[in-house]
Amino acid sequence: MIEPIRIGIVGLGTVGSGVVRLLVESANHISRHAGRPIVVQKVVVQDVNKVRSVQVPGGSLSTDIRHISLDPSISVVALLMGGLEPARSMMVELLKNGKDVVTANKALLAEHGPELFALARRQERSIAFEAAVAGGIPIVAAIGECLAANRIESIRGILNGTSNFILTRMEEDGSSYSDALKLAQKNGFAEADPSMDVDGTDATQKLAILAHLAFGVWVPWAEIPRTGIDGLDIDLLKYAEELGYRIRLVAVVNRAADKLAMRVGPALVKIGTPLAETRGAYNAVSIVGDAVGRMFFHGLGAGQMPTASAVVADIIDTVVGRTAITFRTTGLLSVDTPTTHMNETDTIERHFLRINVSDKPGVLARITGILGNHGISIASVIQHDVSGSPDTGVPLVIMTHQCASIAVRQAISIIDQTDVVRGRSVCLSVLDE
Amino acid sequence: MIEPIRIGIVGLGTVGSGVVRLLVESANHISRHAGRPIVVQKVVVQDVNKVRSVQVPGGSLSTDIRHISLDPSISVVALLMGGLEPARSMMVELLKNGKDVVTANKALLAEHGPELFALARRQERSIAFEAAVAGGIPIVAAIGECLAANRIESIRGILNGTSNFILTRMEEDGSSYSDALKLAQKNGFAEADPSMDVDGTDATQKLAILAHLAFGVWVPWAEIPRTGIDGLDIDLLKYAEELGYRIRLVAVVNRAADKLAMRVGPALVKIGTPLAETRGAYNAVSIVGDAVGRMFFHGLGAGQMPTASAVVADIIDTVVGRTAITFRTTGLLSVDTPTTHMNETDTIERHFLRINVSDKPGVLARITGILGNHGISIASVIQHDVSGSPDTGVPLVIMTHQCASIAVRQAISIIDQTDVVRGRSVCLSVLDE
Repeated sequence: MIEPIRIGIVGLGTVGSGVVRLLVESANHISRHAGRPIVVQKVVVQDVNKVRSVQVPGGSLSTDIRHISLDPSISVVALLMGGLEPARSMMVELLKNGKDVVTANKALLAEHGPELFALARRQERSIAFEAAVAGGIPIVAAIGECLAANRIESIRGILNGTSNFILTRMEEDGSSYSDALKLAQKNGFAEADPSMDVDGTDATQKLAILAHLAFGVWVPWAEIPRTGIDGLDIDLLKYAEELGYRIRLVAVVNRAADKLAMRVGPALVKIGTPLAETRGAYNAVSIVGDAVGRMFFHGLGAGQMPTASAVVADIIDTVVGRTAITFRTTGLLSVDTPTTHMNETDTIERHFLRINVSDKPGVLARITGILGNHGISIASVIQHDVSGSPDTGVPLVIMTHQCASIAVRQAISIIDQTDVVRGRSVCLSVLDE
Repeated sequence: MIEPIRIGIVGLGTVGSGVVRLLVESANHISRHAGRPIVVQKVVVQDVNKVRSVQVPGGSLSTDIRHISLDPSISVVALLMGGLEPARSMMVELLKNGKDVVTANKALLAEHGPELFALARRQERSIAFEAAVAGGIPIVAAIGECLAANRIESIRGILNGTSNFILTRMEEDGSSYSDALKLAQKNGFAEADPSMDVDGTDATQKLAILAHLAFGVWVPWAEIPRTGIDGLDIDLLKYAEELGYRIRLVAVVNRAADKLAMRVGPALVKIGTPLAETRGAYNAVSIVGDAVGRMFFHGLGAGQMPTASAVVADIIDTVVGRTAITFRTTGLLSVDTPTTHMNETDTIERHFLRINVSDKPGVLARITGILGNHGISIASVIQHDVSGSPDTGVPLVIMTHQCASIAVRQAISIIDQTDVVRGRSVCLSVLDE
């Protein structure tokens, strides 16, 4: 009889309950992969009296992290609590007491990754975090291990399931943004306070983690240009479709020499391409490596069991010793990889513009004249015969050819100051492949 | 200065040259991932005098495997020669002399996997084989490690790039099978003798390897029902498209209780689903796990650098010690996982039939009557107004509702014996999601 490995779990919410369920229901299968049984020894929660949907067989509950950190029989702990505090202090406490940590907390890593990773390395411990990005999609392993022979050239991801659910509902049902958000909340795909999801924060934090893995640098997530989906309306989606595109919240990092260009925001993706076909709560990641070419991964990016699947895979990896190796080599990456990042000033791509113009003669000539002065050439224009007035304006939709983003931004700021424009114009990136 | 790890390479064809190129061109990047430089110490080839596209810096060439196997300074060897012999004998020689082996040879593993894996375990060595299935797609790691917490329910894959290239050309250009094959050969996507690719052998061998990883059993590949694309004609693709489908060579394993249902053959896949959108030399794998749900992977399945990317990732994994761990735990899997496989007799799905019928009254009633007698209900029928004669026949295309494959096969064998049918009917599986 092989001695089981005893683990601790911190947090018994949706993900924590899923992890316990998986460890119990698939115990035989998991113990074969781990080479020994995995037993939940102790659980730390915020309220021990709360009624739980799962029973922890033999696991004793406490609200005190020392219940786990000071137990020498526990070597691996899954930290499955969200937010920054007390999660950060708890991880520090666990690492200082010699525990290897598995976590799904992307906000914690995006905010405090450098110090936590450094602490783990000093303590000769590891942090595994497959579940922190794209749920069940093994993107952390893919970048950190499977594509190790490649220099990564770009990563594009749909990393926030809530936003993607909302956009898919708007596009397929013609719902308004607010109705789609309510439906997402009703179906458990959005929190009561969805702001971190719909304003792009969540996707940006995940992008910062992927960039760390791919390029060995920690870019502070708050410095990454970010736009959410909360400013989108259904008309934008309809115009995009008319041009052969869908709108997705896309997180992008491109490498050019020693610079990284990063951003998160709604972008037009061509119908028929993998990102455009990513619907509902699914996540997707497209990576280009110099040797492997373009790789595409698609799967459930959130939800109880997909996330639990990634957490338990990390627990197994930590138990058998793979995580320690990977965590050590990942730390060696940041030697001569890109160390600066750029704010997309050099980006050349197609742009989608919606400008609300006064419905009177000469307007189109004036707008296109300003674009032309900035070297922006127009691929297509849509202006429908809608009833507008000089006061409310009518939408003018323009798809540009490839041009510098900085030129488009400058042109738009001039256009928005003219007396023929009503309200603020919208400018979105266009991703053609 | 950290001592470099010295490796041997057997075979300097397309993949071997790519591996050398990647190890040289990305040496800094790779050494960071491996924690130390990786140097090609010795190379074994079949003809030392052949002109090579790559130079092996410092590596000395020989035709004798003992040049590598007896060199105590070499611990890891990439065996990149195709075919069964001398590859099998060479791997045995390498393992017996204490070398860890990395290989891309799927035929060798499908044919001799059990004995080679057992030998490696007895010698406390490892065999890494990410490159043997789906080229650059990290599907071996995904199943063996990343989805370890899941009981796999099904795998569907487009695993042969040559077949997929040919089918895509037929569908997009309207080419005949033989013209598309010639184009594939001209573009380096098909061998001079393409039979192993187009008859489904290659995909079947890869499926056997994936089933081993997912279920811990070695199903002899030759026992897996297999149909190639060599019997397809352009009309079949056109009828499929008319019904909203494309035709792909799909390798399938489904698990039901303790049985595996496996097969390889052309199948109709719905336009808009990921398998249908897999074009050209790309490969794709869709996996359903009980916790993670449906995962989809897409990438270049063959070619020099994508395959080299997977080989070098395996070399790195072996150097740092991850492979040894994974190889050990994979060996523990075959305890109570499915041990029998079934020949699709229980499969329930939709079927696509093309029956060449005599163009005279009462034929449709007779055919559909036979189908009805076998409990097969019809979803749609296509019979175009083409000029046929009672002798040559006209095509009758039928899409069934869900029904047992065995019933369809029985009905077709009766239908093909009637005097109203000309030639053999075609029956293909339909995969709707």
